[in-house]
Amino acid sequence: MKREIDFFFFIGSVYAYLASQRISGLALQAGVAVNWRPFSVRDIMVEQNNLPRNQPAKMAYIWRDSERRARQDGVPYVGKPPYPIDPDQRANRVATFARTEGWCEDFSTAAFRTWFLDGVTVGSPGTIEPIVEALGRDPAQVLARADDDDIRALYAAETDVARKAGGFGSPTFIVDGEMFWGDDRLEEAIAWAAGEHPAQA
Amino acid sequence: MKREIDFFFFIGSVYAYLASQRISGLALQAGVAVNWRPFSVRDIMVEQNNLPRNQPAKMAYIWRDSERRARQDGVPYVGKPPYPIDPDQRANRVATFARTEGWCEDFSTAAFRTWFLDGVTVGSPGTIEPIVEALGRDPAQVLARADDDDIRALYAAETDVARKAGGFGSPTFIVDGEMFWGDDRLEEAIAWAAGEHPAQA
Repeated sequence: MKREIDFFFFIGSVYAYLASQRISGLALQAGVAVNWRPFSVRDIMVEQNNLPRNQPAKMAYIWRDSERRARQDGVPYVGKPPYPIDPDQRANRVATFARTEGWCEDFSTAAFRTWFLDGVTVGSPGTIEPIVEALGRDPAQVLARADDDDIRALYAAETDVARKAGGFGSPTFIVDGEMFWGDDRLEEAIAWAAGEHPAQA
Repeated sequence: MKREIDFFFFIGSVYAYLASQRISGLALQAGVAVNWRPFSVRDIMVEQNNLPRNQPAKMAYIWRDSERRARQDGVPYVGKPPYPIDPDQRANRVATFARTEGWCEDFSTAAFRTWFLDGVTVGSPGTIEPIVEALGRDPAQVLARADDDDIRALYAAETDVARKAGGFGSPTFIVDGEMFWGDDRLEEAIAWAAGEHPAQA
């Protein structure tokens, strides 16, 4: 079995922020490779009538819980970020395009930090360019590619992979057909990828 | 500060089963007292349009995840139990009555095991009597009390305590005004009760 983990995430998901700041270190320690795979959890949650922002009690809890988790796990946290973000899912499509060129992790990590730590509504006009530029890429070219049909199709196909695997939230981790939901399952998913299976399939 | 944790649970909640089998040992080790408080998470979830059984992908995941968690945490697990159970919430009202007499933990622990390990649809006719009898109580008398207005009112009042604290799922733990949701937050809630606060309020 390959020691790898598929990390399905959405730039704009609170718990995906936490996972994005933790996964590389944990995976490195465990000798597990990480595939960064942007997907539209928003489309899936709309389909399933499961948007947390329609549930005020749950949403309020998410902010408090994510703050506690960040402090406990040593993940940078300065306060509640803007929410929701990325109205046209452009940041996620840029991440999808970046994946085809091998810089998805760099872009996504930076986008998550810009959102959560700088309080920027990433995806809104003018917010993606500085992130792309800091990575030494041409913003105009990248943003144009993110709007192309092939990248939109790839983003939709990735979303469908997660959907067909039973995914309904972000982050979703998939290891050899086994699915895990939530930043709080990251350690379990990595252990699974490393061959430790407390529950046999 | 008192070292205690309010354990709001619903007999019929998958993750409350896991917590019910773990909480006493963990709390004992930490020197924390546990208040067992039955509440109607079903009423709250209906109000919030958040019933997991209306979300097939999430429900399928819950069964797999709870099995993995049980095996990982050494909680007895034999297979997927009947779901949902307790159509009239009678088992939860019996637990509410038992609380007024000091045997709520004993009844609830037994009811959870009967449901999850024996595969009994606890709450359906004839299923509560053997549990009550094994605890040395009179089933007819107990079931009659569980139907009385004062017990129904207490159950509703407890549900309202959880609702007003921002509760939306089961189990919910409350420690000195701080709320935690889910069996996977049990250790964190107990640590909080023991005075360990990685995130300050």
